[in-house]
Amino acid sequence: MASSTVSFIIIIITTVLLPALSSQLSDLFPSNNPPPFLGKHSHPIKQPNHHQQYRYETRYFSQPLDHFSFLDLPRFRQRYLINTEHWVGPSRSGPIFLYCGNEGDIEWFAVNTGFVWDIAPRFGAMILFPEHRYYGDSMPFGSKEEAYRNATTLSYLTAEQALADFAVLITDLKKNLSAEGCPVVLFGGSYGGMLAAWMRLKYPHIAVGALASSAPILQFEDIVPPETFYNIVSNSFKRESSSCFDTIKNSWNALRSEGQKEDGLKQLSKTFHLCRELTSVQGLSDWLDSAYSYLAMVNYPYPSNFLMPLPGHPIREVCKKIDGSPAGSSILERIFNGVSVYYNYTGEFDCFQLDDDPHGMDVWNWQACTEMVMPMSSDQNTSMFPAYDWDYSAFREECQRDFQVTPRPRWITTEFGGHDIEHVLKSFGSNIIFSNGLLDPWSGGSVLKNISETIIALITKEGAHHIDLRASSTEDPDWLVEQRATEIKLIQGWIYNYTKKMKATFEI
Amino acid sequence: MASSTVSFIIIIITTVLLPALSSQLSDLFPSNNPPPFLGKHSHPIKQPNHHQQYRYETRYFSQPLDHFSFLDLPRFRQRYLINTEHWVGPSRSGPIFLYCGNEGDIEWFAVNTGFVWDIAPRFGAMILFPEHRYYGDSMPFGSKEEAYRNATTLSYLTAEQALADFAVLITDLKKNLSAEGCPVVLFGGSYGGMLAAWMRLKYPHIAVGALASSAPILQFEDIVPPETFYNIVSNSFKRESSSCFDTIKNSWNALRSEGQKEDGLKQLSKTFHLCRELTSVQGLSDWLDSAYSYLAMVNYPYPSNFLMPLPGHPIREVCKKIDGSPAGSSILERIFNGVSVYYNYTGEFDCFQLDDDPHGMDVWNWQACTEMVMPMSSDQNTSMFPAYDWDYSAFREECQRDFQVTPRPRWITTEFGGHDIEHVLKSFGSNIIFSNGLLDPWSGGSVLKNISETIIALITKEGAHHIDLRASSTEDPDWLVEQRATEIKLIQGWIYNYTKKMKATFEI
Repeated sequence: MASSTVSFIIIIITTVLLPALSSQLSDLFPSNNPPPFLGKHSHPIKQPNHHQQYRYETRYFSQPLDHFSFLDLPRFRQRYLINTEHWVGPSRSGPIFLYCGNEGDIEWFAVNTGFVWDIAPRFGAMILFPEHRYYGDSMPFGSKEEAYRNATTLSYLTAEQALADFAVLITDLKKNLSAEGCPVVLFGGSYGGMLAAWMRLKYPHIAVGALASSAPILQFEDIVPPETFYNIVSNSFKRESSSCFDTIKNSWNALRSEGQKEDGLKQLSKTFHLCRELTSVQGLSDWLDSAYSYLAMVNYPYPSNFLMPLPGHPIREVCKKIDGSPAGSSILERIFNGVSVYYNYTGEFDCFQLDDDPHGMDVWNWQACTEMVMPMSSDQNTSMFPAYDWDYSAFREECQRDFQVTPRPRWITTEFGGHDIEHVLKSFGSNIIFSNGLLDPWSGGSVLKNISETIIALITKEGAHHIDLRASSTEDPDWLVEQRATEIKLIQGWIYNYTKKMKATFEI
Repeated sequence: MASSTVSFIIIIITTVLLPALSSQLSDLFPSNNPPPFLGKHSHPIKQPNHHQQYRYETRYFSQPLDHFSFLDLPRFRQRYLINTEHWVGPSRSGPIFLYCGNEGDIEWFAVNTGFVWDIAPRFGAMILFPEHRYYGDSMPFGSKEEAYRNATTLSYLTAEQALADFAVLITDLKKNLSAEGCPVVLFGGSYGGMLAAWMRLKYPHIAVGALASSAPILQFEDIVPPETFYNIVSNSFKRESSSCFDTIKNSWNALRSEGQKEDGLKQLSKTFHLCRELTSVQGLSDWLDSAYSYLAMVNYPYPSNFLMPLPGHPIREVCKKIDGSPAGSSILERIFNGVSVYYNYTGEFDCFQLDDDPHGMDVWNWQACTEMVMPMSSDQNTSMFPAYDWDYSAFREECQRDFQVTPRPRWITTEFGGHDIEHVLKSFGSNIIFSNGLLDPWSGGSVLKNISETIIALITKEGAHHIDLRASSTEDPDWLVEQRATEIKLIQGWIYNYTKKMKATFEI
C-alpha cells in the first residue's frame, strides 16, 4: 500500500479530535509520542466526484492574522465556499447558513455536510463554508510550509481567532450585500460544532442559532470524567459482544509479550500484514487504538464512506470477525481479522503501512498542545484499552518538546465556560441544538440534556459522530429522519422569531 | 503654574473618553492633531489623604501578554487591589465585587468609586480592583517606557485582552480560595462601564451581573448620530442660559479673528492669563473645548473634586460668569471668566499652562486609534462648538502618522455588537444595569431604555458622568439616593437568584 493511500485512509477521519491514544499505552509501552490528533491528516485528497454533487463558488477574504492585537502582521487569505442559488435575498430576509469550518480542508467538510445542502432550498438560504485558518487553502504567511514552520508562525492558530475570522467575514459579506437583516444560522460538527456553539454564545449579535453536532464542549479540565471517551468506545464493543471486548482487552498483553520475544517484531509485522517491519510495538498499538476509536465514531447503522469504506454497524462486523475467527486462531490473529474490517473493507490492500512519523508537525496537535487540552484516561475495569491515568505533566513536556509551546489547560473554560454550564446557559444562551449520538465516544463530553426551552439536547441512542449533518439517504433509519425533522423545525422557529421581531421593529 | 500642576489638573479627568475636539476645529483652525483622549493624563498623582479612606492590599498577578495567541511573549504583572475584611467567604457564598479597571491608575479609580466600598459590607462582599493593562502599575515589558515605546509594544493594549485579564485573574483567584461558587458582580464607569457590560455579555459564566455606569457602548460607527455628544454638551449650557450658549458659540470666530491680528497671539495669551505666549490658536481652542466637555461630564448638583475642585452645578456657575461679566467685557474676556470656574475655582493660579504636547505618546489615544473609534461631529445649528463633520480618512491618517497603526473602525461592533442591540440583548443578555445621567454627554451613546426585565436602564435627568459610582454623601439629592437604592436592590436580586439556583443544584 502506497504511503499516499495510507494518508488518504486516515485523512478522511477528519472531524475528529482523537485523544492521547499513545499516552494511554505508556504503562505497557512507555512512549513520549504526542497524542495523535488528526491535524496532520486533515487535508483530504480531493474527490472530484463528490465535488460535483454540490455547486459552490470559491472565494477568498483578507483577514487580519491577529484580531486581538494590533501587531503589524501580514494579512492572510481565508477561503470560503458560497452558494446563493436558493437564497431569496435581503428583501425577503433570506437566511444565511454558515458552517463553521474546522480542522481540515473546507471542501471536504462541504461534501460531507449534506444536511446543510439538503435543507437550504426550503429555507431560501445562502450557504457559506468558510475555512478554518491554518487548514486547507487558508494559510497565513502564504504557504503551509511557512505557516507550519514553528511556534511563532503557528501562534495565531486558536479557536478565538477562528471565531473572529467568521465574525469579520460574515459582517463584511452582509454589509456588501445589504443583507444586515438576514439571519445567520450556524452549523458545525465535532470541533466545528464546538465552534458553532461558542460562536452563538460569544457572538449572539451575529447568529440567531447554532446546530452543534457532536460538540464535546465539556471535554475539558475536570468537567466530565477523563475516562468517559474510552468507556464509550469500550461499551460500543461490549454491547456487540462481551467476548470481543475481552479479546481486545487481553490483546495488549499479548502484543507486548510477542514484541518482547526474539523475532517478535518480525512475527507481529507478519501477523498484521505490515508492508515494512516494525521497529517498535508502539506504532502497531497506535494503529489498533485508532481503529477502535474511529470505529466507535463512525459506527453508523448503514454502509458509509465517511472515514473509510465501511459496512453498516461496523463494530458489529469487527466483533463478528474477532469472535468468528477460525478455531485455533491466536488472539492477535483475531485482532487482525477484526481491524481489517476497518482498514481493508474493500479487500484492496495486501499490506498496511503504519503512520511512521508520529512527531511530524501536525497542526491539530498544535491546537491540542495549546488550548484544546482534553484530559483522557482509561479505566482498568471499564475500558478495553490499557489502563492509563491522565498525566498532564507528561503531556506538557511532550508539547514543549514537540512544539516549543506550553499548554494553557484552563484557558478554554475561562474563555468559553464549561463548569456549571447548565446554569450559565439557562439564564444566558438561547437557540442552540446540541445533537449527539450515544454511540459516539465524544457524546460524553457534550451537552446531553435540555437546558432551557431554546437550548435543546437531541440524543439518538443509535447515532454516532454527527451523523445528522450527513446527507439524507434512503437508508436513513426512522430515528435519524425524525432527528433531522426536529432540527429543521427548531431552526425554522429561530428564523420565524427573528423575522417576527424584525417586523415588529419595522412597524414601530 | 508648574507643568506638574497642569498635569495634575488634567490628570484627574480620568474616566473619560474625550473625543476628537481638535479635529472639530479643523474648519476654523486646520489641524492634524490627534484627538486629545486622556490616556496621557491617566496616571493620577497619588492623593495620600484619599488613600486612607479605603483599606486594601495591593497584589500582582502574572498575566499572558496575548491571551489569544501563543507567541512566546514575556508575561506582565497586573496590579490589583483587594479587600476581604467584609467578605463572608466561600461557605456563605460571599459575593465578589469586581471593578473593571479602565484607562488609568487603579488606585485613583478605587478612591473615586465609593459606591462599591459603601455597599460591600452589607453584601458581605470581597472588593477587587484589577488594573487595566498598560495603565498605572500594570506595564508590559517591565516599564512604561518600554510598554509605550512603539506600535509593536503597544499592540496588546486592547479591550478584549483587558477582559481576558479580568477573566483569568478572577478564575485563578476563586480557585485558590475555593470560592468557585461565589458570585462575581461587575462594576465600571465610562470605558470601565463598557468593559463591565461587555464582560457580562462575553463571560456570563464568570459574573452574574454588571453595573455599567455611563457606558457609551453604542458610540461606534453609525449607531448613534455623531453629533450626539456635542449636542448634549451644548444643551447643558443652553438649559442654563441661552445667552451663555450664544457667547460660546460666537467666541470661536472672535478667537480666530484675534489670532489673525498682529500681536493677536500675544493679546490672546494675555486675555487668557497664559504663562507662556501662544504659538497658535489651536492650543487655546483645545483648552476651551476640554473645559466645556469636562464641565458637562461633571455637572454634578453638589460641589465636587472629581476632575477639578468645582462648585455644585458648575455649568450654571460658568454661565453666571460669562453672562455676568462687567458691562463692556469683550466676548473673549467673558469666556475667560467662565472657564476660570473650571480651571481656577480655588483661585490659586495666576497663569495657565496649556498642554503643549498634543503629539506625545498617549495610550488612550492608542486605543482610540485602534479599536475605540468613536465618530464625533458638531452640528452647525445645534452645537455651540464649531461645525465639524466626522472625517474618518483624516482620523486614520492621523493615527498612521502618530502611532503607525491603522484603526479598525468596525471591529468593536463586530466583536461586541451594538447594532440592533435591543433584540440581541433581549433574547440573550441578562443582569446588566445601564445607568446614565442625562446631563452627561456620554449618555447619548449608552443604553437609555429597559431592554428586558433584567437589562435595565436607570436614567437620572439631573445626573452626570457616573455620579452613582461615587461615595454617598449628605449632599446627595433624593434622586441619587433612590438610584443607588434601586441598584442595590437589583444586585441583591442577581445574587439571590444565583444563590437559589446553586442551592437547588446542591439539593438535587
